[in-house]
Amino acid sequence: MIDVPTLVEQARQGRPRAVARLISLVENAAPELREVMAALAPYTGHAYTVGLTGSPGVGKSTSTSALVSAYRRLGKRVGVLAVDPSSPFSGGALLGDRVRMQDHATDPEVFIRSMATRGHLGGLSWAAPQALRVLDAAGCDVILVETVGVGQSEVEIAAQADTTVVLLAPGMGDGIQAAKAGILEIGDLFVVNKADRDGADATARELNHMLGLGEAREPGDWRPPIVKTVAARGEGVDEVVEALEKHRAWLDEHGGLAVRRRRRAADEIEAIALAALRARIGDLHGDRQLAALADRVAVGELDPYGAADRLVAGLTTA
Amino acid sequence: MIDVPTLVEQARQGRPRAVARLISLVENAAPELREVMAALAPYTGHAYTVGLTGSPGVGKSTSTSALVSAYRRLGKRVGVLAVDPSSPFSGGALLGDRVRMQDHATDPEVFIRSMATRGHLGGLSWAAPQALRVLDAAGCDVILVETVGVGQSEVEIAAQADTTVVLLAPGMGDGIQAAKAGILEIGDLFVVNKADRDGADATARELNHMLGLGEAREPGDWRPPIVKTVAARGEGVDEVVEALEKHRAWLDEHGGLAVRRRRRAADEIEAIALAALRARIGDLHGDRQLAALADRVAVGELDPYGAADRLVAGLTTA
Repeated sequence: MIDVPTLVEQARQGRPRAVARLISLVENAAPELREVMAALAPYTGHAYTVGLTGSPGVGKSTSTSALVSAYRRLGKRVGVLAVDPSSPFSGGALLGDRVRMQDHATDPEVFIRSMATRGHLGGLSWAAPQALRVLDAAGCDVILVETVGVGQSEVEIAAQADTTVVLLAPGMGDGIQAAKAGILEIGDLFVVNKADRDGADATARELNHMLGLGEAREPGDWRPPIVKTVAARGEGVDEVVEALEKHRAWLDEHGGLAVRRRRRAADEIEAIALAALRARIGDLHGDRQLAALADRVAVGELDPYGAADRLVAGLTTA
Repeated sequence: MIDVPTLVEQARQGRPRAVARLISLVENAAPELREVMAALAPYTGHAYTVGLTGSPGVGKSTSTSALVSAYRRLGKRVGVLAVDPSSPFSGGALLGDRVRMQDHATDPEVFIRSMATRGHLGGLSWAAPQALRVLDAAGCDVILVETVGVGQSEVEIAAQADTTVVLLAPGMGDGIQAAKAGILEIGDLFVVNKADRDGADATARELNHMLGLGEAREPGDWRPPIVKTVAARGEGVDEVVEALEKHRAWLDEHGGLAVRRRRRAADEIEAIALAALRARIGDLHGDRQLAALADRVAVGELDPYGAADRLVAGLTTA
């Protein structure tokens, strides 16, 4: 039996074990989540969330760690959520490899958590925002959401942040990869990491060209800056924080923060609603309605749309 | 205005342009799909579908092409569906690069089609089975479904086939990658391609070990065979076809074909039903119900579960 009120109270006080426990509940889609989220709701909306995404090898983990250090120097409480949708490993398993992150392992003002969401009901759209709520209610000023990989779902998570950082590195043919993955459209800020390597300027130029940053914009439009860093040595990281703060100020000024958060909440509500509806279909499946329809579709007696109509009718009158 | 009955009739006669047109309707989630699928239903259930998956570089495209040749020698009409969930390019774009496939470009008994499904409503679970229906109704005896990439959704598509082939190549550390991606569980047949390279035997042995193929099984259980090929030279491909036919016979004998097709139909119906429900939520979104709920969640007035409850209530009484 989980004592939700106590757990929530402890998480609000920033007790790491309680925070970790609540995120595990999210990860496991525990039945207590409903109660947890209701208890957390009044304490959310404070944290500034930054999404970090980019191809493997650009130095996402190193950059995240460097950003944690930079924000700690500013006295901020920082949360890190590393989301790996393809990993079957959960909890601390991943972070064991992330040597850089261990710099912060003993800092009580830093919460680091990896989350595996493969195969979860409703997927990432559902789980990541709830983990953010936990870190938010735990008093984090800034939450860095690092997505491991470059699939569509990773891009979606990173895009849901208040500010989205797209990382690249020289000489990886990243530009084209990024464009293909639809990653360029979501960047509020671009970081060319490993800028001490050959080709960093070329990468920045190529990016500048692909983004059309040279073109005229409307006054008041946000112009995504390109920052060069060597995250492993901390070079350029303060400039990234500065650019993040500028974007945040711009969002505040133009009402963009409220718009993004409203959109994020809408996506979250929709994902939970769809998971609930899917669960009802699952119940019907148990009731053999779906199985009977599938039998008829499999032999060509009924088409899948006709079958879906009957399923939805059964669902909405149940 | 699309003349669906004529298009369906032409597709049934195996006219390539009509088949291509119908798959484009699937790809574009055209409103006519409902009518198309109702018209096609009585002519489906004939084709044997084979899913092919594996990491980039194992030779999926070459293997697919070699299998097409092998089935053509047996006088079969063959369909190929290459699904790339991450590609923003649709239609023929991808196939332009697939030189091997051009061996079959002028064969009227071969239908080759690539499908980009990125960003589609309901995603792959929804689109791929409907494209299969089109090829099935067009009289294909065998349909090869090749998935480009190794993400979760690719694995799901390949797993939905009557028989699933997992491709590997020597010396790519594939074993571990495959195990991580959950790819081993779905293979009914394993192909170690590029078997003229060093390490092919080691890869086959490793695979044999990971699959526990040495262990005792129940009588009647299917024991996934491992076939070595050099697809670029056609070596071993007849053995693959032979193994495929054996698996099909085993499915027939044990009732597995009906079970798989029923499951595939159930997934398809569920995906269409969820897309329909999502569209209703979208309508509500327009009606500002979701927007109003999102406003309250974004400021912490309401938790996302409470909001989802109200959304679902609005949906099912509408």
